[in-house]
Amino acid sequence: MKRAEIKSDIAWSAPDRVMIHGYNLCDEIVGKVDFGQMTFLQIFARMPKDDNELRMFNAVMVILVEHGITPSSLSTRLTYCGAPESVQAAVAAGLLGLGSVFVGSLDQAARMLQTAIPDPSSPGDLKAKALEIVDDYMQRKAIIPGIGHPFHKPIDPRTVALFNVAKETGYYGPFADLITLIGQTAEKRTGKVLPVNVTAAMAAVVSQMGIDHRVCRGLAVAARAVGLVGHIIEESRQPMAGEIYMRLEHEASQHLAPKD
Amino acid sequence: MKRAEIKSDIAWSAPDRVMIHGYNLCDEIVGKVDFGQMTFLQIFARMPKDDNELRMFNAVMVILVEHGITPSSLSTRLTYCGAPESVQAAVAAGLLGLGSVFVGSLDQAARMLQTAIPDPSSPGDLKAKALEIVDDYMQRKAIIPGIGHPFHKPIDPRTVALFNVAKETGYYGPFADLITLIGQTAEKRTGKVLPVNVTAAMAAVVSQMGIDHRVCRGLAVAARAVGLVGHIIEESRQPMAGEIYMRLEHEASQHLAPKD
Amino acid sequence: MKRAEIKSDIAWSAPDRVMIHGYNLCDEIVGKVDFGQMTFLQIFARMPKDDNELRMFNAVMVILVEHGITPSSLSTRLTYCGAPESVQAAVAAGLLGLGSVFVGSLDQAARMLQTAIPDPSSPGDLKAKALEIVDDYMQRKAIIPGIGHPFHKPIDPRTVALFNVAKETGYYGPFADLITLIGQTAEKRTGKVLPVNVTAAMAAVVSQMGIDHRVCRGLAVAARAVGLVGHIIEESRQPMAGEIYMRLEHEASQHLAPKD
Amino acid sequence: MKRAEIKSDIAWSAPDRVMIHGYNLCDEIVGKVDFGQMTFLQIFARMPKDDNELRMFNAVMVILVEHGITPSSLSTRLTYCGAPESVQAAVAAGLLGLGSVFVGSLDQAARMLQTAIPDPSSPGDLKAKALEIVDDYMQRKAIIPGIGHPFHKPIDPRTVALFNVAKETGYYGPFADLITLIGQTAEKRTGKVLPVNVTAAMAAVVSQMGIDHRVCRGLAVAARAVGLVGHIIEESRQPMAGEIYMRLEHEASQHLAPKD
Repeated sequence: MKRAEIKSDIAWSAPDRVMIHGYNLCDEIVGKVDFGQMTFLQIFARMPKDDNELRMFNAVMVILVEHGITPSSLSTRLTYCGAPESVQAAVAAGLLGLGSVFVGSLDQAARMLQTAIPDPSSPGDLKAKALEIVDDYMQRKAIIPGIGHPFHKPIDPRTVALFNVAKETGYYGPFADLITLIGQTAEKRTGKVLPVNVTAAMAAVVSQMGIDHRVCRGLAVAARAVGLVGHIIEESRQPMAGEIYMRLEHEASQHLAPKD
Repeated sequence: MKRAEIKSDIAWSAPDRVMIHGYNLCDEIVGKVDFGQMTFLQIFARMPKDDNELRMFNAVMVILVEHGITPSSLSTRLTYCGAPESVQAAVAAGLLGLGSVFVGSLDQAARMLQTAIPDPSSPGDLKAKALEIVDDYMQRKAIIPGIGHPFHKPIDPRTVALFNVAKETGYYGPFADLITLIGQTAEKRTGKVLPVNVTAAMAAVVSQMGIDHRVCRGLAVAARAVGLVGHIIEESRQPMAGEIYMRLEHEASQHLAPKD
Repeated sequence: MKRAEIKSDIAWSAPDRVMIHGYNLCDEIVGKVDFGQMTFLQIFARMPKDDNELRMFNAVMVILVEHGITPSSLSTRLTYCGAPESVQAAVAAGLLGLGSVFVGSLDQAARMLQTAIPDPSSPGDLKAKALEIVDDYMQRKAIIPGIGHPFHKPIDPRTVALFNVAKETGYYGPFADLITLIGQTAEKRTGKVLPVNVTAAMAAVVSQMGIDHRVCRGLAVAARAVGLVGHIIEESRQPMAGEIYMRLEHEASQHLAPKD
Repeated sequence: MKRAEIKSDIAWSAPDRVMIHGYNLCDEIVGKVDFGQMTFLQIFARMPKDDNELRMFNAVMVILVEHGITPSSLSTRLTYCGAPESVQAAVAAGLLGLGSVFVGSLDQAARMLQTAIPDPSSPGDLKAKALEIVDDYMQRKAIIPGIGHPFHKPIDPRTVALFNVAKETGYYGPFADLITLIGQTAEKRTGKVLPVNVTAAMAAVVSQMGIDHRVCRGLAVAARAVGLVGHIIEESRQPMAGEIYMRLEHEASQHLAPKD
């Protein structure tokens, strides 16, 4: 079998130098580039082209960091309780739940939008596209990714905030228009309150930034890793995992106890 | 058994609002706070107190993001090759190797410094402390965490860069002095070239920032999650995992083949 | 919101007793039940109904344990090299690669067979079904799960071994017939050598045992966890991870070095 | 740098053959060896030497499989709820909590015993050793690994069951005597009820089997992987993760809600 190349363009070092994506870590990055820019550089293999792009990117990332007590942060805390020597394992355990149900809706929404508008410079008839998408999902009895929220309604305030930044930075465009039309159409068709939730808003914005839907889950995972570290630090000072364990072990198995 | 509290102070939501560490996500964070500040907020439960603190923090974080092809990034790439549908799992697999051998030296170095200087406002006789530490490790034939580097020598250029930022921001103090003295003492005692490596430099800086050594691994894990996402994106376009697998499977088992 | 039940039927304990799936651990399991039976009990919530069922189950499980140097076992070894204090993390890292590409083909093959034969007591016209399946996959230019093998050809010897056990234990039936017909049809249609590989053979056998395709990945994950522990023990005595790291780091980045 | 060997003695394949630890998978393992024997082979690189060794090994493994609703099984269930497509990730998340707090006590107990009796053929004065060990832990105010249980008291019934198998198979020896003496001494010294718990009993038995304490966590991880698959299957039919999430999210954050 022919030998294929093993090649990475990300980093290279010499004794006196570390190069990352073409930048000299010591001369051009440390002290000059912040964590948001570095995250952008590492993911897109280039620096943000201007302040607007960086600000839009930062706005998406900060929303993804923290979502409170979730299955993911609970898993992190429960893991930390059994293996406090392995902070990395507790973060990993929390990340593992960011699958099709929670974070998956972000890349699904982005894929839906990017499929509907392959070229945002000629977006086409957005009303017709919204109608077609809503029809398609309703026929398949599927949930439209990013439409509706059990709690943040009738409006998801994060959508408003994110779209405001998008307007200020020039990333409010056909993708945001399309998702808004999809939400309105879905509300009309179903008679239900179906806000464009923050996931859909992020999907619209990253699509406008030219970010491939396949990259979305990566953004979410990176941001949430930060969030989970915050939960570990709180858990180390103010633990809840032991109490959760004791309550649930009892409740879950008591029906098996012999009645006598 | 008495029922303990299950309580987190990190986040709270209402339909029209999400509060994180006391800040309104929509009004005070999105579009106003960047990813570096948000990471600081999530980990320390407060905003950076000034630009110097934020700049120092960013300098540490950007160094931690990317370390090239390592056991950790290889594990991420190999996992992605088997489960490309689970970006989160590939990141998690890479984080799991950030244990005692690699990232552990950061918290070990920070603990060593924080134990030697419990109160940096009265650091004591640093020369004597450096001597005592070097003696202690040499007697135990243990490696001093953060001292020496197989490749970046005689000077680790990242240490120079980080200490320059520390000087500019006011975080160059007794911890940096102590680690420098430890390096010099170790060189004299052993006759070897033993630079203060970037891990020790980061340990000195975060100690001067008042960051507990137990938090260090969390910083590293959060930053490296970003780095690993970059490796996944490259692997998705320019894969190496399949080739690694084929080469190594062959090499590792060929000695078991019957000779005939 | 109404409060739902939190209820598990698996285990219950009293100070003098531990009950697992209705069996008393101390009186009925320890010393009386072997690890294969216990694994069956834990997964199917009942004991094997006879020796044939247990033998068939064991035959599937032993095949799944060890597959040599794979992306999964490499990931385990690389993780162990960074975090030798966390054997559980090294196993976890290896399991994470058992996704759609490798182990996924087992549940895909089982689903294909179980969809084609919803009731094995009246399997229908298997030739017609094989033809229809092969046509469907060829039209979609998709790979038929479990058909063909890059190395074990023209026959996968594990398929022969497993089907022999199936014949001896009464689990060779319409599912095995169907997968054999699918393989033959695919060979005729494509003119390629396409053996029924061990994955397809396992899929046929577990389908005949009445095991839902959704459970298949669980069997594989449990068995492979055992395999990965074996790799960790070998790595602890005869390591390869450090050498892999050094070779690949150099090879992957050398093209970035300045030419001069 | 000299090129080191990359070599594994576990498995080797040819198109018509798979060899595992020197056995032909198709001719000597499938249909002939059960999952317990295969697990033994994979971990110790040899088959059990007789029925007694195999029975003792099986007895240890079956005890390790299932421990009810624990932080580990909760983490698995919470992960499955977010990523049901990744059974392997849910198992991995559960394994990650098997660290120093829970499973760690098994290898700690085994190390304690193996350090105290380096050569079981001349075990020395066990009473004196028990006294010395108890004194040492009491002086350091440390918990003796495997001694005492919050729930299974005054006797851990699993210890009785396991020691009975050990007596029948010839693995009840100086390690079991020593741990029993340690328990008795600790009870006398503290005046507390301190049974030899199942962890200590397993540690004594595996030490008598000649299993290195460093291998113990591997046994536990392999067995628990089976247990966690059982929890995933139950969770898929009778979920609790969603309810846990909703209850805890509310309870944890309600104190942050504005009072008005």
